[in-house]
This record gives sequence, C-alpha cells and structure tokens, in this order.
Amino acid sequence: MRGRFITLEGGEGAGKTTLIQALAEKLRGRGLDVIVTREPGGTPGAEVLREILLTGSTDRWSPMTEALLMYAARVDHVERLIAPALQRGAWVLSDRFADSTTAYQGAAGGVPIERIKALHQAALGNFKPDLTLILDVNPTTGIERTIARGEDATRFERFDPGFHGRLRRAFLDIADDEPDRCIVIDGNEAADIVFSHAVSAIDEHLGARLL
Amino acid sequence: MRGRFITLEGGEGAGKTTLIQALAEKLRGRGLDVIVTREPGGTPGAEVLREILLTGSTDRWSPMTEALLMYAARVDHVERLIAPALQRGAWVLSDRFADSTTAYQGAAGGVPIERIKALHQAALGNFKPDLTLILDVNPTTGIERTIARGEDATRFERFDPGFHGRLRRAFLDIADDEPDRCIVIDGNEAADIVFSHAVSAIDEHLGARLL
Repeated sequence: MRGRFITLEGGEGAGKTTLIQALAEKLRGRGLDVIVTREPGGTPGAEVLREILLTGSTDRWSPMTEALLMYAARVDHVERLIAPALQRGAWVLSDRFADSTTAYQGAAGGVPIERIKALHQAALGNFKPDLTLILDVNPTTGIERTIARGEDATRFERFDPGFHGRLRRAFLDIADDEPDRCIVIDGNEAADIVFSHAVSAIDEHLGARLL
Repeated sequence: MRGRFITLEGGEGAGKTTLIQALAEKLRGRGLDVIVTREPGGTPGAEVLREILLTGSTDRWSPMTEALLMYAARVDHVERLIAPALQRGAWVLSDRFADSTTAYQGAAGGVPIERIKALHQAALGNFKPDLTLILDVNPTTGIERTIARGEDATRFERFDPGFHGRLRRAFLDIADDEPDRCIVIDGNEAADIVFSHAVSAIDEHLGARLL
C-alpha cells in the first residue's frame, strides 16, 4: 500500500522543525515507516543546490531563476527519495515543498503565480502532497523566534519589511485555494498545542484510510 | 534599435566554436557591437550551474532535473547578459541555447517535448533567437573531431550508441518545425564553406533589416 506524503509550510520561525520531529515520533509509535526530509534539499544532489540557493547575496539569483533551481532540487528529491519511499509504503514528512516556491518566489518574490503553476506542471505533473499543514504565525513572532535561535538573522533582516507580510498572506491564499489538501494551524500557540492540532488534522484527513 | 540574437546549434564536433569566432569577426568588421557567449553558462551564476551540470557521473541528474538546471542557467543568462545587450543594440551570438535542451534532455534524453516547451514558456515566455544556425554533421565525423581535439572524449563515449543519432534527428526536427527561424548548414564541409553559408544565411534572414 502506498504511503502518505505530508508537508509542513509557513514562514521563518513558524515552528516547522519542532513539529516535524514530534509528528515523526508519534507516527513511528503507531508502527509506520516514517521518512523526515526537507526542502530545498533531501537528496545529495538537491543538497548541492540548497547550498547554491541559500548562500551568497540575496540578489545572487532572480526570483525566476530561484524558482527553477528550487524545482530542479525538487524533481531530484521526488524522483530519488519521496516517490520511492511512498511506493514502498513509507510516510514522508517534508519541512517545506512546492507551496514554499509559490509563496517565496511567487507571491513575495514577484514571479506570476500562473508561471509557478506551469513550472510545477512541467516538472512534476500532478504530483502533490496528500496533506499540507500550514503553520501561521504573526511575522513579528516568527522574526523574534528566528533571531532567538541565532539562525540566518542577518540574511533574514535583509528582506524588505513588506516581504514577511506578503509571505504570510501567500500561504493563507494557498490554503483558501486548496482546502481539501491544506490545514492552517495557529503557530503562535505553544508547541504542544500546535502538535495536538497537527495530530488531529492528520487523523481527520488521512486517518480514515490508515490509522 | 534592438540588436539581433543568433544561436548556433548541433551535436558535438559540429564546428560551432570555430564558426562563432569567424562570424563575430565578420560582424564586427561591419561596425556592429558583437557579444559572443555560450550555454550552459555565459554569466557568473550560469557558469556555476555549468560546472554542476557538466561534472560528475552522467547519471548525476535525471534528464528532467538537467532540463530545469539548464533553464535556471538560461534565465540568468538572458536576464543578465542577452536581453540587456540586445536592448542596447548589440548582436549576441550564442554557442547553444534552448534548442540544445529540446535535443539533449528532450529527444535524446526522454523528457517529453511538450514538457520542455511548457518549461520554456514558464521560464522565458516567447523569448527566442532571431536566427538559429543548425550545424548538421554525420555523428561519426562529430565523434572523430571531438576525440581529435582531446575534449570530453571519455564522457562523450559513455553515452549509448543511439544517442547521437537521436540528437541529430532532434535538431533536424526543430528546423522542420520552425523553418523561419532555423537554417540547417552542412557541417561536414570545410570550415570556410560552412562560414560562407552562415554569412549568406545571416544576410538573407536578418540583412534586409540591418546589413
């Protein structure tokens, strides 16, 4: 039986990394084979592209070039890790996937959404997650959390002030467009509350089939 | 007045590098501002991607991932070199462009041509060369020339025997599909004959406007 593909999305400091580890443990406790991965990256080739994407000045690549590099990494990730894992029945949890390209390079970066959709179709056809959990946080909270953990703060602050607002709006728009696939969870809550909402969402959306 | 964009295409050992230098000299002799460039590459970012594409084992990337990396490099090349040069009136000569992706990753590599076309549209819209010179050589001649100059021979021979035949057919199919843009030149001829055919093609196709 084919596994299930669950993605976590949201801006910086939304709590994706904490949540994904807790969910993996929970699902493994139910006897499932669980793969935890991330984008950009997840396979040796895609990690090479991650390095190219996340280093250098923020204008090293234009948003359209970034979108193409993200999809190059994504196709490698899907073909060589995600699809084979699903095929053998594993559950795959990914910290970011295609919705991040729609939000970052599309809505926030200025590439028309129709071009991102056409790119997705050309690269991956109709392949998409079974369930996407969107962690929605107040951008100020997200920025504070990111700075508190000492990660990427310089790079992060280089973005213009409107960037994080556009990003948040973009993820909420994706959830509105695809309500059957996407669940929005309030990421301003404590980690244990976020976790229990996420488990409920998985049970409601995928549980009828497997849990 | 906008410049002109001319691309040279064809398999390995077709004589593109020799021809492009001779054409640049000829056009400069007519007082034109001429830029000679190549793909993958041509800009600092795209040259980084060239390195990633042309090193490592031949199965380092799947043909679809390669096509996406080629288009990432191409968008950087167009946005940062080709389009600004055309805008200021320069003539741009490129050793390979989009038709090489159609031929290598598409026809010879197995990515459906419709997907390559959709990818082009998403990445670059309707942007295309004003004229494409396709150098058609017997694959055996091309292989002999490539080995004689000591380049890429090992990598080259790793491809399966049908590969070069599919590649040649692919370039001829592109010329059949877009006869107004593409001119096929017999690359088995001596370099000076190939050059004179190329100059005639440029004068006939673009000359009415500028030469």
